Formats: sequence, C-alpha cells, structure tokens
Amino acid sequence: MSNLEKFFNRCTQIVDEELDKLIPPAATEPARLYEAVRWSLFAGGKRFRPALVLAVGTAFGAGENKLVRFASAIEMIHTYSLIHDDLPAMDDDRLRRGRATCHIKFDEATAILAGDILQTLAFQAIADDQDLSEKVRVKLISELANSAAKMVAGQQLDLDGEGKKISLEDLEKIHHNKTGAMISAAARSGAIIAGANESELNSVTNYASKLGLLFQITDDLLDITQSTEVLGKTAGKDERAEKATYPSIYGIEETRELAEKVHAEAVEELNDLEKPVEILREIAGFILRRKS
Amino acid sequence: MSNLEKFFNRCTQIVDEELDKLIPPAATEPARLYEAVRWSLFAGGKRFRPALVLAVGTAFGAGENKLVRFASAIEMIHTYSLIHDDLPAMDDDRLRRGRATCHIKFDEATAILAGDILQTLAFQAIADDQDLSEKVRVKLISELANSAAKMVAGQQLDLDGEGKKISLEDLEKIHHNKTGAMISAAARSGAIIAGANESELNSVTNYASKLGLLFQITDDLLDITQSTEVLGKTAGKDERAEKATYPSIYGIEETRELAEKVHAEAVEELNDLEKPVEILREIAGFILRRKS
Repeated sequence: MSNLEKFFNRCTQIVDEELDKLIPPAATEPARLYEAVRWSLFAGGKRFRPALVLAVGTAFGAGENKLVRFASAIEMIHTYSLIHDDLPAMDDDRLRRGRATCHIKFDEATAILAGDILQTLAFQAIADDQDLSEKVRVKLISELANSAAKMVAGQQLDLDGEGKKISLEDLEKIHHNKTGAMISAAARSGAIIAGANESELNSVTNYASKLGLLFQITDDLLDITQSTEVLGKTAGKDERAEKATYPSIYGIEETRELAEKVHAEAVEELNDLEKPVEILREIAGFILRRKS
Repeated sequence: MSNLEKFFNRCTQIVDEELDKLIPPAATEPARLYEAVRWSLFAGGKRFRPALVLAVGTAFGAGENKLVRFASAIEMIHTYSLIHDDLPAMDDDRLRRGRATCHIKFDEATAILAGDILQTLAFQAIADDQDLSEKVRVKLISELANSAAKMVAGQQLDLDGEGKKISLEDLEKIHHNKTGAMISAAARSGAIIAGANESELNSVTNYASKLGLLFQITDDLLDITQSTEVLGKTAGKDERAEKATYPSIYGIEETRELAEKVHAEAVEELNDLEKPVEILREIAGFILRRKS
C-alpha cells in the first residue's frame, strides 16, 4: 500500500468515526430522517475534502484532534449538496456513491430535510469544537459558509446554463463556484487551524485553486470515459444534459493536456512552502490520474 | 399606535435594513437565485422571531446594534424553512405571506437553492458579527443550529404523522420541535447577547416555551377560523391534510380556553425577573389575540 493510500485510509477511518459521533443514531426519532442522513453520509464516499483538510493541516503542524472535526463538517456540507443536487427538480439522479440516491431510497421530502439538517449539523459541529479556540471556530464557520454559498450559486449557474451554449469563461465561473470554492475552503481551513501565516495561506490558496480546477477537468473526463459502475454515479450525463464541459469545448486529447498543465501549476505552488508538503504533491498526482 | 405596534414597526425596519445588507443585491449573479431569496425574505413577514430577540435583549440591557444581526439571521433560518416546507414534495403550498410561494414564482430547483443559501448566509452573518465577541458568536451559532435541527426533525415528524391518528403527546412533540425550538432560540439568544445569568436565562426559557406553545395553539385556531386572504397563506389546510391540531383534538371552544391558560402561564414566568419586561407581557397578549 502506498503512503497516499495509507493516508486516505487513515482519513476515512477517523472522519467516519467522528461523523458517527456527530450524527444522531439511526434509531433516534424521527428515525426516517437520521436513516436518510446516514444512508447518504456513510456510502463509501472518497472523503477527498476531509483528506485535504488533514493533509494541509498536518503539513503545517496541527494535530489530528484539531482537524478531524472540521474535516467531518466539510464532508457534511458536501454530502448535503449531493443529496439536494440529485433531487428530481435538480439533476434528477438515481445513483450516487454506488447506491440509490437519498430521494430514491427514501422520498423527496425526506431527502430535502436530510440535506437541510446536514448543513445545520455541520455548522453546529464547528461551533461546538472544544479543541479549537472560539476565534478559530468563528473564522472556520465564516470560511466554510462563504464557500458553501458559492457552491449553491455555482449549482444555480450550472442549472441556468443547461442546454445553452456557454463560453469557457462561464464554464470556469461555474466550476470555480460549484466545486472550487469548497476544495479551497478545505485546504485553507487546514492551514488556518494550524496557524499558518498570510504568505503560507496565500500559497495554499493558489495550490487549492489549481487543484479544484484539476479536479473538475478530470471529473469531466471521467464522465465520458468511465462506466457508471466504476464511477458509482451515472456516467455520460453531462452530454445528455447538454452541459458544457472541458472535453465538449476542447476535445478529449486537448483536455488531457490541459489536466497535465494544471497539475504542474498546482505542484509549482507548493515549492515556496518550507513545510513537509510531499502528501500535497501526491494528492495532486492522484487527482490527475484518478479513475473514478 | 400602541407601544407594541411601535416596537414591532421599529423591529421590522431595522431587521429589514440589516437583511438588505446581508443578502447580495438581486442583480448579483446568479440573479435568479438572489431574486428568489429576496422574493421570500421581503414578503412582509411579521418578523416575530426577530422581535422576540430584540424584546428580550433590550429588556436585559443589550443595545440594538448587538441584537439586530442575530435577529436577522434567525429570520433567514425561518424563511429558508418556509421556502422548503412549501415545496411540492412537502406541504405543496402556493401561497405564503400573501404572495406566490418561491417555487411557484420561480421554480423548484431555484426554491431549493434559495432555502439552502439562506441557511448558509444566516450562520455566516453571525460568524462575521463584529459587534459581538467570538465567544458569544460561537454560543449563538450553536444555539441557533440546535434549534434549526429540531425544526427540521419536527417537520419530518409532521410529515410522518399526516393522515395518521396521533396522540396529544405526539402533537406536542411535533410543535415543540417544529416551531417551539426556534421561538425559544430567539428569546434565549436575546438574553445570551445581553449577558443574562443562569437563573434569568432559565426564566426566559420557560417563558419562551409557553409562548411557543401559545403561538402554535393560536396558529391552529387561525387555520380554521380565518380566511386565506387574512392569513396570507392557505387557510383550512390542516383539516384537508388530516393533520392533528388542538381544535381537532379539543374542539374550538376548549382550545380557546387552553390558549388563555397557556398565556397566563407564559406571563407568570416573567414575574421573577427584575427587568423591564413589559414588552414581553404585551407580546404574549398579542399572540393570544392575534388575527393572522
């Protein structure tokens, strides 16, 4: 097992343990609500955003105990957004993380409420984190909320653009908001928790911005090159929804070259940091080469 | 104009001004999203929860500047819950605050996203409130999140109970969660901001608990005794949805007597407080006698 695999496994383990403590047991009334929350939250997600919190935070010297709560909270926000994005009124999807989407397994009302309460519990988890000072908690809530608002705006832009011919600039704006902002929040928050200085935070921000772009480019590629089975979510749906994507604008080969270029830029941003950032380089490589 | 009317008008004025600053202008991209948020937020709501924050906070000696941000945030949470509760998959309502519900005026996807971002912006508004210490901000976010989670659980219980014969105990559990928790958070937060001591906070909690119950009892009464036009939302829908209500269990006359009794208990809780709580008495009277 590679170092990176070990790292991801460790992240998944501690984040899942923390999430299990933060979410009421499935038998809690109303049981249907918490079952639905747990159905979507414990569905074998990659925990990429939490891993980024932990990778950056650890590189800057923070202990896991100071990072795991926020890492779990950002996964709760991410999962709430997946539940709502999959609803019939939005992307209308039946499969997510290899299993039925929340509204298919339960019903639409329950899925809406499961998403709603996940967002609430995420902010509460940070507010109640006794391992962080109140000053840091407030900063993290503001950081996360700022990105979560961008994520929602990005989803609206995405829906508004469906079936329309949109420019590359518009496409980048959608991604920057919809996925980039939360990836940026993950990386930046790790650094904030560890007490990084302004210049360091700046490098982390630039790294995360490139990483978010790389994530989206490879996401677009996977949507057309991989099967539904491998992805654990419906493949080929960008094309069917007539969504603008990098391959639809550049073609597959040129998009692959773009991914290489953005990967190199992300790694470049790490060079000025006098910290043990090897794991951050490996994460960028992993995103470049990911198969699902 | 009575003192209470003047007080409510003042609350609406300062809260609406604050909300206008907290929500991006309607022309901000994605314009459809912020138009939808503003459509539901500036629809002439009674601003009851903000008024309660301001009434309790002022009685305990806090300045308006320390109260108005939280008062606005709790209205944002309340409005997000109305937008989502009105969705076709939930209560499926077309009218709210005297105008078309968000998903009717815009569309379902936009309404889901408008509710989502309102919740996000509410927590961000508190986290960024420079007029409060970080310690108080964290406490308020935890208090509000705790109540917002109960509100969602209450809505789930309410949906689960539709068309079933439920006990008075179950009915009270639904209301305690769905509306009581947020009313309690409003009153308690006003006291927390003002730095009330434990014993005072206890009295405020008990007052708010009775006030929340009174609010729900009169809400049930209005649903069957008032017209849709007066209420600004669809009247008579509890009966059509076969929802358990106080009048359906006790009948109208006995429910009115219950309202009087709960009102007296709410006011009783104020007697131990050596503070200028006249406005809190008047608010309880207003809820008892409200016509919409």
